[in-house]
Amino acid sequence: MPLKIDNRIPDIVIGRLPLYLRALNRLKQVGVDVTSSHELGQKLGISSAQIRKDLSHFGGFGKQGTGYQIDFLIDKLQSVLKLDRQWKVAVVGAGDLGSAISHYRGFIDRGFEISWLFDADSEKVGTQVDRFVVLPMSDIKKTLTDNHCQIAMVAVPAEYAQNVADTLVEAGVKAILNYAPINLTVPEGVMVQYIDPVVHMQHMTYYLDDEE
Amino acid sequence: MPLKIDNRIPDIVIGRLPLYLRALNRLKQVGVDVTSSHELGQKLGISSAQIRKDLSHFGGFGKQGTGYQIDFLIDKLQSVLKLDRQWKVAVVGAGDLGSAISHYRGFIDRGFEISWLFDADSEKVGTQVDRFVVLPMSDIKKTLTDNHCQIAMVAVPAEYAQNVADTLVEAGVKAILNYAPINLTVPEGVMVQYIDPVVHMQHMTYYLDDEE
Repeated sequence: MPLKIDNRIPDIVIGRLPLYLRALNRLKQVGVDVTSSHELGQKLGISSAQIRKDLSHFGGFGKQGTGYQIDFLIDKLQSVLKLDRQWKVAVVGAGDLGSAISHYRGFIDRGFEISWLFDADSEKVGTQVDRFVVLPMSDIKKTLTDNHCQIAMVAVPAEYAQNVADTLVEAGVKAILNYAPINLTVPEGVMVQYIDPVVHMQHMTYYLDDEE
Repeated sequence: MPLKIDNRIPDIVIGRLPLYLRALNRLKQVGVDVTSSHELGQKLGISSAQIRKDLSHFGGFGKQGTGYQIDFLIDKLQSVLKLDRQWKVAVVGAGDLGSAISHYRGFIDRGFEISWLFDADSEKVGTQVDRFVVLPMSDIKKTLTDNHCQIAMVAVPAEYAQNVADTLVEAGVKAILNYAPINLTVPEGVMVQYIDPVVHMQHMTYYLDDEE
């Protein structure tokens, strides 16, 4: 992921904050008010020392011995991660995956509103998928530019993903979540993160027993 | 991810091998026979020194100055990652995501065969999703044990995910890919990897411009 050069907090720390936030929200849901770096660490498989060190980058979140106020820490982390607002997200690709993303209700209360669904297939354009009418790729630049949309998900086959990414970059998108199993080339200042379930499974098979 | 204690290769190295494999297969698809750590590094945003060091853990994959034979390196990496076989995978959850996974054709040529689709909802059990008849949760232990299935994907809502994981562990599953936005607690010797698109997007929003 490209970093701002002047940024002093390591990207690996930033990458852990959403995990802390998710665990904290989960604790809140089950009625917990206060937690500790120890409890969080156990839930996440991260050492409590690491959690305290990560959080210390952003100032004093908890007092020694009294633990973290969960509501307060959630607010702070949301503010650090700029989740104290709703980000509009464009989805490109109205196939099975793009449709599943459109149906999923788990984005909205975590900072993201899926706002548009695009597809290159003229048979899909104009059809209804969940609450969206599928839009043609010819609309994408104007739509995203007009709405200052900075985030997009790419849910198209691998062979189209780079072209789609190029279009998104032209439309001003700065953060791409790529579901296509291919590495994207983007200019500096544009971030890409990858979702590829096979990569995760191939990581685990290394450790599996041979006998099957 | 839990590691075998006696394993001397860092897990972070193992985690990069699937990315190398994906990039190599992509090069092969477009007709390239030979590549270099420099070319791979550029595609992946990883330094060529890192790639050479990672690969050196597994012996001599390339000769100085002549680059890597792509076919040879693919074979070697597949062997290291135990992908020189097909792993049967169970999917739990026949909702939108589980259905999208069932329809997806990109697993089979990367080492994985989606083999069963389970759901707790009696209205879904018995229905056809792609080439699967949805099976009831009551079948899961016997089916996975009988077939020595070691890998499962969890595609159920967060509130059910821990229960499903417990059942999978009882059924002998050693590797879980969890799509539910919650951290799972599993015994030692069982691995979990996570797919949570929101975590990736929240990581990127930190770097986005405020103006929207």
